[in-house]
This record gives sequence, structure tokens and C-alpha cells, in this order.
Amino acid sequence: MPAFPLPPGSTIGVLGGGQLGRMLVLAAARLGFRTAVMTPEDDSGAAQVATRAIQAPYDDAAALAALAGLADVVTFEFENVPADVVASLEALGATVAPNARSLAVAQDRVDEKTFLNACRAPTVAFAVCETAGEVLAALDQLGAPALLKTRRQGYDGKGQTWVESHADAADAFARVGDQPSILEAGADFVRELSVIAARGRDGDITTYPLGENHHEAGILRRTLAPARLPPQVEQRAQVIAARILTSLDYVGVMGVELFELADGRLLVNEIAPRVHNSGHWTLDGCEVDQFEQHVRAIAGWPLGPVTPLAQVEMENLIGDDIDRWPELIGEDDARLWLYGKAEARPGRKMGHVNRLRPLERS
Amino acid sequence: MPAFPLPPGSTIGVLGGGQLGRMLVLAAARLGFRTAVMTPEDDSGAAQVATRAIQAPYDDAAALAALAGLADVVTFEFENVPADVVASLEALGATVAPNARSLAVAQDRVDEKTFLNACRAPTVAFAVCETAGEVLAALDQLGAPALLKTRRQGYDGKGQTWVESHADAADAFARVGDQPSILEAGADFVRELSVIAARGRDGDITTYPLGENHHEAGILRRTLAPARLPPQVEQRAQVIAARILTSLDYVGVMGVELFELADGRLLVNEIAPRVHNSGHWTLDGCEVDQFEQHVRAIAGWPLGPVTPLAQVEMENLIGDDIDRWPELIGEDDARLWLYGKAEARPGRKMGHVNRLRPLERS
Repeated sequence: MPAFPLPPGSTIGVLGGGQLGRMLVLAAARLGFRTAVMTPEDDSGAAQVATRAIQAPYDDAAALAALAGLADVVTFEFENVPADVVASLEALGATVAPNARSLAVAQDRVDEKTFLNACRAPTVAFAVCETAGEVLAALDQLGAPALLKTRRQGYDGKGQTWVESHADAADAFARVGDQPSILEAGADFVRELSVIAARGRDGDITTYPLGENHHEAGILRRTLAPARLPPQVEQRAQVIAARILTSLDYVGVMGVELFELADGRLLVNEIAPRVHNSGHWTLDGCEVDQFEQHVRAIAGWPLGPVTPLAQVEMENLIGDDIDRWPELIGEDDARLWLYGKAEARPGRKMGHVNRLRPLERS
Repeated sequence: MPAFPLPPGSTIGVLGGGQLGRMLVLAAARLGFRTAVMTPEDDSGAAQVATRAIQAPYDDAAALAALAGLADVVTFEFENVPADVVASLEALGATVAPNARSLAVAQDRVDEKTFLNACRAPTVAFAVCETAGEVLAALDQLGAPALLKTRRQGYDGKGQTWVESHADAADAFARVGDQPSILEAGADFVRELSVIAARGRDGDITTYPLGENHHEAGILRRTLAPARLPPQVEQRAQVIAARILTSLDYVGVMGVELFELADGRLLVNEIAPRVHNSGHWTLDGCEVDQFEQHVRAIAGWPLGPVTPLAQVEMENLIGDDIDRWPELIGEDDARLWLYGKAEARPGRKMGHVNRLRPLERS
């Protein structure tokens, strides 16, 4: 275990080469850290800016040893890091943050919801479904339509399907690949919100003002932040986030996706044990953004202020949205973040834009 | 000549591996550019974050060819880039910005002041001194004390000395190394200010709000920005900067150091054809910082807005100031920028801190 706080010049290791890794690396560099990115990807966006890049599959023992040797602390930019990769790194003496338990909880939707409810972070009702018959039985309990999701994997709306009726149960189970799944009751929500929370090694917790999220085709399209909210809803979200982070003895930034119900109650949709797309508005809207906050947390530095400086509309640039760059660079209030990806495949996040206007004082 | 605006994914070349190069690289990465840094330095702060690093002396022909091959546009982070390096790059087909003329003018204090006065950017009176005798003669004209500086090289107060009296003339000439010099009349200024200006490939010019600079031992210690100024002084600075940039057909960011006289007149002290230490406050104080602005300009992108978002006090961390890091990371309103330098030699700029408070509305 290294001595915390890590001094400038220490190396932050990152598993994963995507945009979240890239922006973590940029934040770490501002604070004087060196970085080492490990990813199987060639010429990844994160490797383009990292001090050191290790290109290898995540289970490559020599590569993991190299990463453990370079890095004073290792973090990750996606929640599907195999558990034994973290175990290998820890066996090699590396400090990994967030911890293995947080990763495990976030990797299995049943474990996740069970954990959330146990720490008084409410979710929709749900049932475990190992067979099509169990989907049918669960529908009796939860009502239709309900959302069927694989227990593991899946992101941006992949690995999930609506079960419209009892008649649709068997088909739906086939649509998610006949694998262990979870059936979630439909939530009658008015808005999707998220709270980006951070917990330091000293147990200190900060939460950014909430963002209001708009999805298209299962992918986050826009976040508006700070969201206009009654103070008690904002506070409720902070309490929920704090319960989750404290229960997990979490270190780092976490994205907590929420459903806001008509009566102001909040349900947790899911948690992401990492920096989160819906927190990209903080890059231009806050004194300290979520990437710096994550680096501060895992490096054992005090967390920074989460004061908002502007009203931000974050728009994801997905697939060939990136072709709009000639117009976007001329938009006066559009702050552009591009991810260094060469190929603009459909559904691929290529960058985002933060559009700023003066803060609304509540 | 590449087609401008450069598309994301193009490569920005940077001559020089110091902190200005590092922060240029970080800004370029945000906008989706790749970067190639060339510097003789090992493990330089800029190379730590660049996509490609070429470690070689600036006159290494093979290295220059490699840089020209990689980069769609080449810029520099210090004004003493040898003129024939730029000529070599241009002969290899590279586009260099700012242009060779701007570099030449900034490299020779006599040429610089002659140019400035010719484009109605007023300076102190000055005289060329090739010998100690000429220093003596110039003192008659300019009065003592006057400031003797070498025509070329010198930064952070190096290569300059005050001539206190006629009796000191010969000694002073020896102190600057018996070389071609310039004698500058003392300026009876009330403040040192600077304006960070940018000019795009389309001729568009932006100027950030002025900064008020405080030096210690010849090195910039603090910048306060936006400086409190009568609007007509601010406007005068903008006019002066615009004259300089337009006259040079300049592309990129320039730092223009100014003396503010008691009657509100401004004299230009010197110009730096690059991003400038006194513009570091823009990193946390403006929508678009000087590094992004420079990248936008040289890439042929429209310039971004220079709107200030906060009142900033920028403090340089020099030499063992860096040992204060454990205290600085806990300062709530201190945004920290560290440069990745391993060794904290006296006088070496190791990082800076931007301290933010709400903007003063004038």
C-alpha cells in the first residue's frame, strides 16, 4: 500500500482505453501525475495522451505485472473489468480503487439491487429469472410491461428488452439470450436524473448538483445541469448517494442513475463505479470536474469543491454526429471534447459538447 | 499547406517540452487532436502527455523531418527557436505558426522595439549599444538609471542589468557579457499589465481581459485577472495588441507585456510569440483558455470566447514552492496545475495555482 496522499509525479494506472480513460489521464496530468493505460485496443484515445501505454488483453499476466509495477494506484474506466483482473493486480501488490466489492456489486444487476435496497437506496421491485417460466411468474408479481435485463454485461441499452405481456415472456427471454436475467417492474417516472458522487480515502463525500438525463435509443443523448429541482429532492439524492458510497467503503467517483417519481421520491436505476457520461457537464461547469475529483479521491487527496459555475447542456456526439464538427467549432458557447477515435461507428460515442449559459440562481 | 480548418485527428506538432508545451498538448487533446512534441529533453513534461515524442536537438535534421512528416501544423512554446529550424521545417513542407517573422522580431530586442514603434505600439525610448562607450553615450540621451539588456536571448530577468549612473556604464556592459545590447529608458510605471491576444487564420482577433503582474527576482510571481482597470485603458491595450498581431500577420496566441503609466498611457515592454505565463489564469477563469485558443488559431478553427467566469489570482510555484503541495491540495479554491518536472531547481517553474473567487462586475 503506497503512502497517501500520493505526491505529484506518482503514476495513476487506468484499465481501459476509451474516452473516460482519456479524460482521467488529462485530469491526472493537470495535477502533475504520470499515467499508465492498459487496454487491448490499438491507438486508443486514452493511450494517445498517457505517459505509458500497455497494449494487451486484460488477462495478460505480464501486462498486469507491468501495470502493477508502474502504477501507484490503479483505477478503471468501465465496470465490466473481470474480477480476477483486480484480484491479480492486488496479488501483485497494486492498490486498486474503487474496490473489488464495488465492482462486483455493479457487475450483477441482482446483486446491485439487493445491495441498494439493503442500504436503504430504494429501487423498483424486481425478480430473478433463470428461465422463461420464471419470467412468466415474475410478471404476475410485477405486472406488465416490465423490463427484462441480463444479470451481467450490457450497457447503453444492450442486453435488455421490454416484456409487454404474459404472451411475450418466452420471446423476451429469448431476446436477451436465454441467460440469467432480472425482471424489473416498470417505473412510472417523470424524469431520469443522476448524481455524480465522490468519496475520498478520508471518507469525505461530495455530490455534484444533479443532472437531468435524456436518452435516445438507450444511449444518453443530453444532460442538463444543474437540474432544476426542489431542494428536498436534491437532498434526498445526496443522502442516497452517501449511503451507497459509505456502505461500499467506496473510493472514487460514482455515477448514480435515478428515477424521479411524480411525488418527488427517487429510485436508483443503476450505479456505475466510475466516472460517468452524465457527469461530463462538470468539465466546463464546475470548479473541479468529475475526472479531477476521481483522481483526487484515488490518490488520497482531499476532494475538491463541486461548485457549479455555469448552466450546462451536455450533448453527446454519437456516430456520425461527429461530422458536424465544422459547425460545432464555430458555435461560440459550445465547449468541445473529442475522444481521438478514428472510426465513427453507429452508436459510438465520439465526443461531447458542453453548451454554457449563466447559472440560474435558485 | 494543409486544408484549414484541420479536422479532429490531425496532428499538432510542438517544438519544446516545457510546461507551455504540456498545456498546449492537453488543450489539443481535448479538441481531438493528436500531438507530436520535439525536444532534446528526456522525459519532458510535454512528452509525458503527447501522442508522439521525438527526443532530439532542435537542429537534428532527421528529427525535424520526422516532425514535419507527422504534424499538420507545427508551433513552438519558446521564442528562441533558431530561425533556421523554422526554415528547415518549412523547406520540408511543414506549416509553422506563428510565422518566422514574428519569431524573428521577438528574438531581437532592438528589432522588437523598432517594429513596435513602427506599428504605433509605443515603448520606452531605447538605444542600440555595441560597446561600453555607446552605453555611456546612450545614458546622456536616456538618463540614468536605465536598463541594459542583451539584444538576444535572456528570459526571467536573465541577461539584463540596471545601469545606475555614468560611472557604472562599463561595468554594466561587462555584466551583460560584453555583447550587442539595448539600453532602455527607465519607465515610471504604476503597474505591469499584460494582454493575451489571439489572431485566427481568418484575421479575427480576441483579447482576454488584462492581467496585473507581480514579479519577484525577475520572475513572474503572481497575475491578478481580470485586472481592475478604467475601460479606456483596457481598450487601449486591445488596440495595441490588434496593431501588433495584424502587422505581423500573426496566427496564434501572443503575450504582450505592458507598463501602465500614471496618466493611463500604456507602453509595450515586450512581446512573446506564444502562450504566456501571465495567461495561465485563463485555464480556470475563462470559457476558453489561452492554450485552446492557440490550438484553435493555428488549426484554422474560429477563435473561442474569452469571457471571464471568475476572478483569479495565479501564483507561480517556483523551485521548492512545490514542496507546499500537501497544503495546496487541501486549499478549497486553489486549482492546481503541475508540470511533471522531477527536479525542483531554484528559479524553475514547477507549477502554478489559480485561486478563484466570484467575478467582480464593473
